[in-house]
Amino acid sequence: MSYKITYFNATALAEPIRFLLSYLNIDFEDYRFEREQWPALKPTMPFGKVPIVEIDGKVLNQSTAITRYLSKKAGLAGSDDWESMLIDIAVDNIHDLRQAIGLYAYDPNEESKEAKYAPLVNETVPFYMDKFEKIVEENNGYFVNGKLSWADLFFVAILDYLNFMVKIDLLEGRPKLKALKEQVLEIPQIKAWVAKRPAAQP
Amino acid sequence: MSYKITYFNATALAEPIRFLLSYLNIDFEDYRFEREQWPALKPTMPFGKVPIVEIDGKVLNQSTAITRYLSKKAGLAGSDDWESMLIDIAVDNIHDLRQAIGLYAYDPNEESKEAKYAPLVNETVPFYMDKFEKIVEENNGYFVNGKLSWADLFFVAILDYLNFMVKIDLLEGRPKLKALKEQVLEIPQIKAWVAKRPAAQP
Repeated sequence: MSYKITYFNATALAEPIRFLLSYLNIDFEDYRFEREQWPALKPTMPFGKVPIVEIDGKVLNQSTAITRYLSKKAGLAGSDDWESMLIDIAVDNIHDLRQAIGLYAYDPNEESKEAKYAPLVNETVPFYMDKFEKIVEENNGYFVNGKLSWADLFFVAILDYLNFMVKIDLLEGRPKLKALKEQVLEIPQIKAWVAKRPAAQP
Repeated sequence: MSYKITYFNATALAEPIRFLLSYLNIDFEDYRFEREQWPALKPTMPFGKVPIVEIDGKVLNQSTAITRYLSKKAGLAGSDDWESMLIDIAVDNIHDLRQAIGLYAYDPNEESKEAKYAPLVNETVPFYMDKFEKIVEENNGYFVNGKLSWADLFFVAILDYLNFMVKIDLLEGRPKLKALKEQVLEIPQIKAWVAKRPAAQP
């Protein structure tokens, strides 16, 4: 099968897909376009957004659905339906944090954007990150059931993007999450991918 | 197993779970609290949000993950990993429309809220809804692969909520989606649920 990712030259929402494909040792085309190309490309996308992935030429959007699909191939999507659900819950909790940060980072109005920053970093971020730290502590170093799942890869893959948007280090003072990050980045296929991936905005 | 849903007295994000449990002929406790109870309840929720579902006493958040889990039990989550992914993509596309509408409906600033309405109903809503209509037309009356899946139940379950937020009838002029809605509401277990569910804000 052939895999082609189309996205900005950024990690962000495409990086979980790149992590999973790398983990699976699947070669993929990693097409990155420049910001000035986006207005022309946007109308050609299934729902006007990226990333998209073409699998054997079939154009797919929705990065999390695609990541979940690849995770099943990788054996990282849970050993039964219950565990799969717990992993999905963890991923969607991380998405909720991402969206809260995004509401600040992508606010086009400078005034309302500025007003969002203090509650974001003083309340919302600690609320989520402390819960994640506790969950990982209670689950023996992982998000779910004491073993590696795609929730862990997803978190580490988008972490640079979250830090970039929120302008602080989310792992500061959170040793369990820091250890999880280091562990994921030591997986040989992930390590090789991160070493060779293009320099880009997170 | 015992199932207890906790949510506002509303359809909204809890209704897909109620649809799936009804489809499965599973009895569930449908606990609905009043708006004035929310400030006291919020800190007791796993991530400060509802709905939550307690399955055999285990407290779970993230309604879509729970709905997907129930869909697997119902045989509505695809016949293989590829089809499961297509269903997940459809659901997340519907979520994107929901979030776009929600950015308008939940904007606390009356001025910026008002400014969002025209682009929402003239651009965003037709963009998504016309695509959904076309997808359902091309898939023999369903969202995915010409057969009933949880994407169809999910769409119909949250449709009243979407219409309520956006203050127009999203199915107006979209006969394929209208037929899909009617068909889902004719499923005996869904029909029975809708007939007996409490009167509530969508």
